[in-house]
Amino acid sequence: MKALVYNGPRNVTIQDVPDAKIERPTDALVRITSTNICGSDLHMYEGRTDVEQGKVLGHENLGEVIEVGSAVDRIKVGDRVCLPFNISCGFCKNCERGLTGFCLTANPGFAGAAYGYADMGPYNGGQAEYLRVPYADFNCLRLPPDAQEKEADYVMLSDIFPTGYHATELANVQPGESVVVYGSGPVGLMAAYSAMLRGASKVMVIDRHPDRLRLAESIGAIPIDDTKGSPVDQVMSHTNGEGADKGCECVGYQAHDPQGHEHPNMTVNNLIKMVRATGRLGIIGVFVPQDPKGPDPLERKGEIAVDWGTFWSKGMSLGTGQANVKAYNRRLRDLIHTGRAKPSFIVSHTLPLRDAPDAYKHFDARDEGWTKVILQPALA
Amino acid sequence: MKALVYNGPRNVTIQDVPDAKIERPTDALVRITSTNICGSDLHMYEGRTDVEQGKVLGHENLGEVIEVGSAVDRIKVGDRVCLPFNISCGFCKNCERGLTGFCLTANPGFAGAAYGYADMGPYNGGQAEYLRVPYADFNCLRLPPDAQEKEADYVMLSDIFPTGYHATELANVQPGESVVVYGSGPVGLMAAYSAMLRGASKVMVIDRHPDRLRLAESIGAIPIDDTKGSPVDQVMSHTNGEGADKGCECVGYQAHDPQGHEHPNMTVNNLIKMVRATGRLGIIGVFVPQDPKGPDPLERKGEIAVDWGTFWSKGMSLGTGQANVKAYNRRLRDLIHTGRAKPSFIVSHTLPLRDAPDAYKHFDARDEGWTKVILQPALA
Amino acid sequence: MKALVYNGPRNVTIQDVPDAKIERPTDALVRITSTNICGSDLHMYEGRTDVEQGKVLGHENLGEVIEVGSAVDRIKVGDRVCLPFNISCGFCKNCERGLTGFCLTANPGFAGAAYGYADMGPYNGGQAEYLRVPYADFNCLRLPPDAQEKEADYVMLSDIFPTGYHATELANVQPGESVVVYGSGPVGLMAAYSAMLRGASKVMVIDRHPDRLRLAESIGAIPIDDTKGSPVDQVMSHTNGEGADKGCECVGYQAHDPQGHEHPNMTVNNLIKMVRATGRLGIIGVFVPQDPKGPDPLERKGEIAVDWGTFWSKGMSLGTGQANVKAYNRRLRDLIHTGRAKPSFIVSHTLPLRDAPDAYKHFDARDEGWTKVILQPALA
Amino acid sequence: MKALVYNGPRNVTIQDVPDAKIERPTDALVRITSTNICGSDLHMYEGRTDVEQGKVLGHENLGEVIEVGSAVDRIKVGDRVCLPFNISCGFCKNCERGLTGFCLTANPGFAGAAYGYADMGPYNGGQAEYLRVPYADFNCLRLPPDAQEKEADYVMLSDIFPTGYHATELANVQPGESVVVYGSGPVGLMAAYSAMLRGASKVMVIDRHPDRLRLAESIGAIPIDDTKGSPVDQVMSHTNGEGADKGCECVGYQAHDPQGHEHPNMTVNNLIKMVRATGRLGIIGVFVPQDPKGPDPLERKGEIAVDWGTFWSKGMSLGTGQANVKAYNRRLRDLIHTGRAKPSFIVSHTLPLRDAPDAYKHFDARDEGWTKVILQPALA
Repeated sequence: MKALVYNGPRNVTIQDVPDAKIERPTDALVRITSTNICGSDLHMYEGRTDVEQGKVLGHENLGEVIEVGSAVDRIKVGDRVCLPFNISCGFCKNCERGLTGFCLTANPGFAGAAYGYADMGPYNGGQAEYLRVPYADFNCLRLPPDAQEKEADYVMLSDIFPTGYHATELANVQPGESVVVYGSGPVGLMAAYSAMLRGASKVMVIDRHPDRLRLAESIGAIPIDDTKGSPVDQVMSHTNGEGADKGCECVGYQAHDPQGHEHPNMTVNNLIKMVRATGRLGIIGVFVPQDPKGPDPLERKGEIAVDWGTFWSKGMSLGTGQANVKAYNRRLRDLIHTGRAKPSFIVSHTLPLRDAPDAYKHFDARDEGWTKVILQPALA
Repeated sequence: MKALVYNGPRNVTIQDVPDAKIERPTDALVRITSTNICGSDLHMYEGRTDVEQGKVLGHENLGEVIEVGSAVDRIKVGDRVCLPFNISCGFCKNCERGLTGFCLTANPGFAGAAYGYADMGPYNGGQAEYLRVPYADFNCLRLPPDAQEKEADYVMLSDIFPTGYHATELANVQPGESVVVYGSGPVGLMAAYSAMLRGASKVMVIDRHPDRLRLAESIGAIPIDDTKGSPVDQVMSHTNGEGADKGCECVGYQAHDPQGHEHPNMTVNNLIKMVRATGRLGIIGVFVPQDPKGPDPLERKGEIAVDWGTFWSKGMSLGTGQANVKAYNRRLRDLIHTGRAKPSFIVSHTLPLRDAPDAYKHFDARDEGWTKVILQPALA
Repeated sequence: MKALVYNGPRNVTIQDVPDAKIERPTDALVRITSTNICGSDLHMYEGRTDVEQGKVLGHENLGEVIEVGSAVDRIKVGDRVCLPFNISCGFCKNCERGLTGFCLTANPGFAGAAYGYADMGPYNGGQAEYLRVPYADFNCLRLPPDAQEKEADYVMLSDIFPTGYHATELANVQPGESVVVYGSGPVGLMAAYSAMLRGASKVMVIDRHPDRLRLAESIGAIPIDDTKGSPVDQVMSHTNGEGADKGCECVGYQAHDPQGHEHPNMTVNNLIKMVRATGRLGIIGVFVPQDPKGPDPLERKGEIAVDWGTFWSKGMSLGTGQANVKAYNRRLRDLIHTGRAKPSFIVSHTLPLRDAPDAYKHFDARDEGWTKVILQPALA
Repeated sequence: MKALVYNGPRNVTIQDVPDAKIERPTDALVRITSTNICGSDLHMYEGRTDVEQGKVLGHENLGEVIEVGSAVDRIKVGDRVCLPFNISCGFCKNCERGLTGFCLTANPGFAGAAYGYADMGPYNGGQAEYLRVPYADFNCLRLPPDAQEKEADYVMLSDIFPTGYHATELANVQPGESVVVYGSGPVGLMAAYSAMLRGASKVMVIDRHPDRLRLAESIGAIPIDDTKGSPVDQVMSHTNGEGADKGCECVGYQAHDPQGHEHPNMTVNNLIKMVRATGRLGIIGVFVPQDPKGPDPLERKGEIAVDWGTFWSKGMSLGTGQANVKAYNRRLRDLIHTGRAKPSFIVSHTLPLRDAPDAYKHFDARDEGWTKVILQPALA
């Protein structure tokens, strides 16, 4: 089958690889119809991870079930399904409590597995024609009859919509609260969108790319351009000097200041300043346990200098980590189905799989207008 | 001062009564600018309670502070404030946990106090020119500079908006869930509106008055007319036979079937049928510990025949009771202030205080179009 | 194999039945070493259900895995496991949220399945030499090396300990609170024990059997004998007239007053009186959707007359239903393992399987001292 | 009146100061009968804060009400009361939600006020004969008739018992979980004690002072001596290599390694290693926004280098800050009253107020056996 293969830093190609197939009785085989490029794919693309050469990338996948293993009960051939990026068993101590992003079974020795991702187990990704889905009864989200009509919305259920939502869940955003979202990339936009869906009274989004800030504004958020003045001051001024009730970090360790310098602790420390005492933060931007090639000496060993004294004095709290996609994907699916959510507003490009290498190049360069790319193997 | 006084069943008049005044150092005195008639006022109006003659009615009050007691810290003369219908001390075992609807101090021997209400303490209501507000620092909600411009919205923070919201909180409505609301009177409409604000994927509202069902539809809910077929069947059909995720009871003990017979257990038992196993109900329609003049023998002693076996087998849960207004009114105020909520959509009439007796008559008769009345003492 | 078979009202016998065996690739086969008689088995024994003749009873099971299906990953031959009485798939809408008592897969058309139980699916029970365990990776709780030494404790994890704990969870018992438990049978004792483990400051248990009240007292609870005066008055007097903070119903629809008359609503209505305003109830005593042979006309159609007006006025809430055993069994297992819990204190008899018919007779007669029976097929 | 006055680093004396008195109608005046020295008093004593000279110290206070202001309703002369160390108004945005440690009224410009403490408002402490208590109805916890008999227990409700409990609440300790507590000083011991009361299956306490570790062991915890090997390895070994379910930080920024070097990030980073993925931390050890005289360059500006990448990859969360004493003190009081908790087990010395300067010296030197000191003005 055709697949997008990682060959080394900034080198990905479409190649023929062995067909994905059923390997265990609990597997399903899915013909991919849509698969996104994720911002976190760029960490691998840029060579900042130890992902192995030859890996098929792609963890935001949707398609049609074409075969199921002998132990699969619920999922049937012909079902249209969206796959959470996390691969989870459903029965370990974490999965049984809904913490499916931290499965103890699928990637032995580590809490968490995913398709086509560094350190997340031996699983190939779905930027390909076919995908093997382990523990299919647990991992497949079945889609309603409008699956094809709203495919660009439903494919967002694989990662980015639940991940943005997870930020608001970690921050425990309540109706009527004010929320600041750091970062207006796809994940930040989904966090802001989720905050709006949850009934926040005011959502502020910090970024500096005009196209991204425009998208934030288009969903009712207040765009805050951090090249136009201190983002802390701007948030304070939008909240009568009180600070936002809650904050979402959607940037991660590769945060840059407006002058282009990387500061892994910039977003967290600014959030500590701009969120009110007793406030809560949801941190979904990626941070890594070590970053040997990073510019910051602390960051090389995975540490950041946190403004801990202020954080503690303000009695703040925070939650972190990858989204447990299954915790939210049914309910978010229903919002799409009834027309109350339309996350595809972030999509800038829908391209054939063969254009993936070029798309990675543009996306990595943060080229104006390349917000979110859907790859479709069947596209001519 | 002028005030609306209860003289007996279906007999209320505007009379001159002694001016409300500061009685304790923690009081404030408020000049009322808007005060609503509430559906629950009709229980008293109709003579179904033991409210004393001479009582000034009115528990949905908003106005301007014109005097404060010597121990009042936070509230200042000139503040525009909305008053929760519950009177609460702020320091008893219930208030300190936010259960301000069940204050143990303000109405000794009973958990809960209110303005101008049967069995809720010796407090006069605000359908009058002035209102005494006990524990003013705790009870007054200060309004922002747009207080007068949006007064018709803000006055809904006194009771009906938080009460409708409370139904969704008791039912623990989550984003993406389906919700059925029984009753499309003002409280039911506010519950439906709150469910929409919280991100429900589908809100179904059951009633039979076309004007009320139209209002439900206008906010994005699905109107269900129980004269057009079994409401249980209709909800099942809207939810693929599964039942709604959550339910809100907004009718109370005076529920009638389409043929006009009163069945105090009708709404609860129908909700048990139309909500899915493990679902949760929020019951904010009023039920009373005894109803000596009621038509139903069980109801006379405050009992209803609940379909308990089905309820238990489905593993359902429920919460009941008056709203703790202070638990929500700040956040709902902020939604009004930022323009994300506009609860005044239910208002049908804004009238001078002197028209109150006539308004009670129409409201009690459920006359077409009399959804919600605001009384304004200053209106010419 | 030998098994305890239901032949009709008050007629159970040990018979030879076909061996339990692996039927699906996700099954495990367990050799039973301990299996309890449950109070709810008596509903079937007494002929108050429609359980089919020929059914093997027994849903409180523990044993050793002797075979696994081809799709079983986690569970190995030789594992000592305790089985939740609920059979659950792990991947339906309810199971994935931890609501494993309401599985939508294992008993199609109904939310919930169990071993050897009326209306809970086509599964035989474990009062037998062997048991087939569906979805074995999800349903088996593995036991630590002290499995055999503490078998009488660990077998309580199948139902009764988590069920008693569930009552305290439904009631949301917090450290320092006072709790009233209605019923001092095995489930009530486990609810009281759980309340103590959770740090309740005062646990009151209502019953009238001296041996059961003594057991309650032995774990630090206050025994309340309802033949010695109104249980409401007694609880009020133990709580300074305030009422208990929380309540647990552990009796169900076959509640009798001290004079021996059945009142299905007695315990719920008394709890409404004896728990404080804003309090919460956990209802785990069994109530059934219909009871054609019951003495009470309402109860025959599954209804009870609830003191709803008082319940509502006090702003109370409640949760009901079967325990989701998997939600608690790991943590309760760890309490047994570290010696902090010893639920076997309720065991009165450990008997060979062949004595089961006689044990049912004594247990059904509530004979003095027959609190809890463990059956062991291997016992000589 | 006599009072313990701060004169400068390591210089405190008993002096005559003006009598505390009623200043506002909402005040009460309390004759102090017991007042503790707190570990956090040592930050001031050692000169690591900017507390003003002349301040009366002491925020762990209990006594008898001898006068009340004209607006005080609930509290009466003669009441025995324990005072939360936090001074809170009861009506601000934080207090009304129970976040009384972050009152916005009592110390304008800062969220939080306390008696006799640096940066926590102009309030004198209670290491004195009398104490002025603002907002008395809200702040006084009334004690039951055994107030004097159990005074050594009840005085712990002012700070240390609720503070230890708060650590377990921030970490959301559930029955059956394993918990590691960093630090076995008075607060760490109270956290461990609280974890036991909440039903933890295993509580591990890390320290190196033998007397403190013995106290931990005496309440059923596992003592871990960090001079005997890596505390991370020891916790891993006690938890089958999995890590503890939850962690409590009870040391703060002045943490030292066994060699005596200060490492403000040592405890947090070790907890990140020794708690399992998805685990939660409660941080109640004090951290300060700046520490100009501290040895660590990051710490001087209030920062610590946190192992953020590992924290994030493990999907952990945490809560911080001072305890909201009122959130817990009623329930903990009831545990003392019914004999289920006896926090006075940490008391090593009960001394007359006049011995306070000497007691500070010993306590600051961590002299063997000086665990917790109660000062009693009336003691001869």
